[in-house]
Amino acid sequence: MTPMPLLDFLRALLKGFAQVFFMNNALTGLFFLIAIGVACQASGDWGPFWGSLVGGASATLTALVIDRAKDPLHTGMYGFNGVLLGVALPTFLQGDGLMWGLIVLGAAMTTIIVDALSNVLTKTWDVAVSTGPFVLTTWLLLFSVAAFDGLHFIAPVSDTLAVPQAARWADLDALLALQVTLRNISQVFLLNNAWSGLLILLGVAVASRGGALAAWLGALLALVCATVLGADRQTVQSGLYGFSAVLSAMAVAVVFIEPSPRSALVGGLAVVFTVIIQGALNHWLAPYGVPSLTAAYLIAMWLFTLPKMDLLIHPHQPNRSSSFGRN
Amino acid sequence: MTPMPLLDFLRALLKGFAQVFFMNNALTGLFFLIAIGVACQASGDWGPFWGSLVGGASATLTALVIDRAKDPLHTGMYGFNGVLLGVALPTFLQGDGLMWGLIVLGAAMTTIIVDALSNVLTKTWDVAVSTGPFVLTTWLLLFSVAAFDGLHFIAPVSDTLAVPQAARWADLDALLALQVTLRNISQVFLLNNAWSGLLILLGVAVASRGGALAAWLGALLALVCATVLGADRQTVQSGLYGFSAVLSAMAVAVVFIEPSPRSALVGGLAVVFTVIIQGALNHWLAPYGVPSLTAAYLIAMWLFTLPKMDLLIHPHQPNRSSSFGRN
Amino acid sequence: MTPMPLLDFLRALLKGFAQVFFMNNALTGLFFLIAIGVACQASGDWGPFWGSLVGGASATLTALVIDRAKDPLHTGMYGFNGVLLGVALPTFLQGDGLMWGLIVLGAAMTTIIVDALSNVLTKTWDVAVSTGPFVLTTWLLLFSVAAFDGLHFIAPVSDTLAVPQAARWADLDALLALQVTLRNISQVFLLNNAWSGLLILLGVAVASRGGALAAWLGALLALVCATVLGADRQTVQSGLYGFSAVLSAMAVAVVFIEPSPRSALVGGLAVVFTVIIQGALNHWLAPYGVPSLTAAYLIAMWLFTLPKMDLLIHPHQPNRSSSFGRN
Repeated sequence: MTPMPLLDFLRALLKGFAQVFFMNNALTGLFFLIAIGVACQASGDWGPFWGSLVGGASATLTALVIDRAKDPLHTGMYGFNGVLLGVALPTFLQGDGLMWGLIVLGAAMTTIIVDALSNVLTKTWDVAVSTGPFVLTTWLLLFSVAAFDGLHFIAPVSDTLAVPQAARWADLDALLALQVTLRNISQVFLLNNAWSGLLILLGVAVASRGGALAAWLGALLALVCATVLGADRQTVQSGLYGFSAVLSAMAVAVVFIEPSPRSALVGGLAVVFTVIIQGALNHWLAPYGVPSLTAAYLIAMWLFTLPKMDLLIHPHQPNRSSSFGRN
Repeated sequence: MTPMPLLDFLRALLKGFAQVFFMNNALTGLFFLIAIGVACQASGDWGPFWGSLVGGASATLTALVIDRAKDPLHTGMYGFNGVLLGVALPTFLQGDGLMWGLIVLGAAMTTIIVDALSNVLTKTWDVAVSTGPFVLTTWLLLFSVAAFDGLHFIAPVSDTLAVPQAARWADLDALLALQVTLRNISQVFLLNNAWSGLLILLGVAVASRGGALAAWLGALLALVCATVLGADRQTVQSGLYGFSAVLSAMAVAVVFIEPSPRSALVGGLAVVFTVIIQGALNHWLAPYGVPSLTAAYLIAMWLFTLPKMDLLIHPHQPNRSSSFGRN
Repeated sequence: MTPMPLLDFLRALLKGFAQVFFMNNALTGLFFLIAIGVACQASGDWGPFWGSLVGGASATLTALVIDRAKDPLHTGMYGFNGVLLGVALPTFLQGDGLMWGLIVLGAAMTTIIVDALSNVLTKTWDVAVSTGPFVLTTWLLLFSVAAFDGLHFIAPVSDTLAVPQAARWADLDALLALQVTLRNISQVFLLNNAWSGLLILLGVAVASRGGALAAWLGALLALVCATVLGADRQTVQSGLYGFSAVLSAMAVAVVFIEPSPRSALVGGLAVVFTVIIQGALNHWLAPYGVPSLTAAYLIAMWLFTLPKMDLLIHPHQPNRSSSFGRN
């Protein structure tokens, strides 16, 4: 057990929020926490807010209990998967004592999986674990709901596939397009709220203007792709075809590959395929009633960063020098 | 082709049974073979008994034909996946000549896959192949049944998901709880028989008392978890929510991580998540009518042993020194 | 951007066709292109012909744009996955402007994935990427069809599982058996045409008689296995249980393992399991209406070549010296 002063712990916790968008910055994390609060205020359900704090705290504490190096802890690297799991469970499941117990245990599990996947992905191939532990742990928990009488979905998770009415250009005016891009950003935290998206975008900009620009351009390109492909209008407008693309754009164009015109081009291709992968995963998961979470981003990010040594103009190094990079 | 005296071959074959529970001990293997026989006597169907011998022999012979190092052979490392496949096919499939041919070829295939997965898992990340070749080969065979007119399930494999009546504490008295823990152990060999479970537990204790204790505590904790989560009562009482957890408890708390209070704690978390993963896999496989086998154990074991170098107090080495360790 | 003379580009493009069957030979590629043309002439739909050229060109151009080493390009290593994707999309999807755009982008994507999977599979474990990028990209695109109103299947892809009438020996005479073996070969390019299969076989023989022999014997053994197992007669006779087996036979018996009596034996086992894996994948994919492509070959090839260092009599080297080898 590594001891840690309370103030350091709170800073590590806030950085755990910030790292969801690759930022190593406690102020960014505070913006994100407020963004979650704003969405909970609007919906009237504060479960995701408290869940994010409980999940982030459990994941970070577990890292202390198993004596993880102090340095990465300070950057929130062990916390952000727990934060996301803590938002996800109250979003999808009915919130009784069992669910809160699973947030604590599941967030602890994400810390184990961060280490497991680091040994595989980062040590062997130098690519990021990113939200892999969140997706894996939350998928296992949500897939198991059907098998256990003690767990219940709040509502069926099936609306992401059906296409009763496809998105069209005629649907969009400038204001709605702006709102959708902001919801594409807020849905990274599973929030359907444009104001939250704006707060998150501002939080990113506090740490990295390039990152914020990549996030918003990714959100815009995802909206264009989903409309060209004819995805379900309701789903597109809720931001559910864009949140993975936002992360792909940031990861490929700015965070893991040295920013350049070429990284922007490759980042654009990554966004296009993230939207296609999103549709593919929605089809794959539809019979199971389980959401895809950020799996589309993970698949695209891994495919596009695995060959990064060759794509880089300054090769052989992930983009560690930037103020917001993570490895 | 490596020549081998018949007595050595028989000893390797028995060790192939023992290695299902991580034991390098021919007497343990004899206990396990008898346990299978007891369950076959009770059910009146001796298919699994003969299947285990045919599968174990085919897997071990294949290892000799392709000139595998002699040493691991003696420990049964090439046999145990064939043993399990030889139990599984007669348990699930109607037993005609084609099925027996597939036991021979499938068990040979497990030996190829032991080497394939060793190159990936053990050489690269120092984690065990374990029952991976059994699960992979048997899944491929059972998934293919629906496509071939020559293969038939004995009965539909679908009862592991439906929850007509959830397990409750009120169901359990001390005797039933003991029986379920023993069935949790016997189901590792796909046997629904408490006496077989007791024989297997004794066989493990012959080689390792710590291993037997971990197995039984894992079986008990799995029963507690499945009851708390509200799994299907019938399925829980048949031992089908516990067999993977038994292996996870042994692997994480005793075999692959140096035994300590911390390994016990981590082993407990591994058992909890093995039960959850079991439920998740049941939901995933339900539409296909294929059983999950020990896949829940494999996922949990790999996730919990991949970061073992960091979790260990004595790091950097799997627990090779123990009398029952395998690598 | 690496500049390349037009004639070199055309030769690289033809080698991209040849590499589908592991051949580094532009004349072989020309045979294959003609084989595709013959089948398109017979069916009246030239989409796959033009698609193969567009896909191969896009994949090869992308490799030039991102400055890949010149050498592997000349062998068509970056082109053949794009060729296959370019055949597959017009085979399964209605061909409007959006589909042709996806051929261009999807083929570019296969070049990215060739590098991504090479870092994982070839650099770490010395096994071939092979058609992995084609299968992955095409699966993502075809899985996404259900989610997007702008993409449509030509016809439901579901006939590969149902077994209304199982294949029997009595169905076969010598001529039909010969035709099926040739269709088993032509279906590698998704063509249901025995003459195309003959042209492809001749094209392989131009570069490697041993390779052509392995391909045909693999096609024959696959027909035997599918008949013994009782696969659907119509599917068997269309060549859909044999195309992956043809590639497995070549890969395991001739290309990636030094040819020998033992490699022939292991290659035979690989063919048997490729047919079984084909049935398993058909069952897995049936609910989604997506074809298995060459995934059965990939699974078998990876499982059988991962332990190749041990299976080889002349170990430690893939079969690079042969005139048609690829790594």
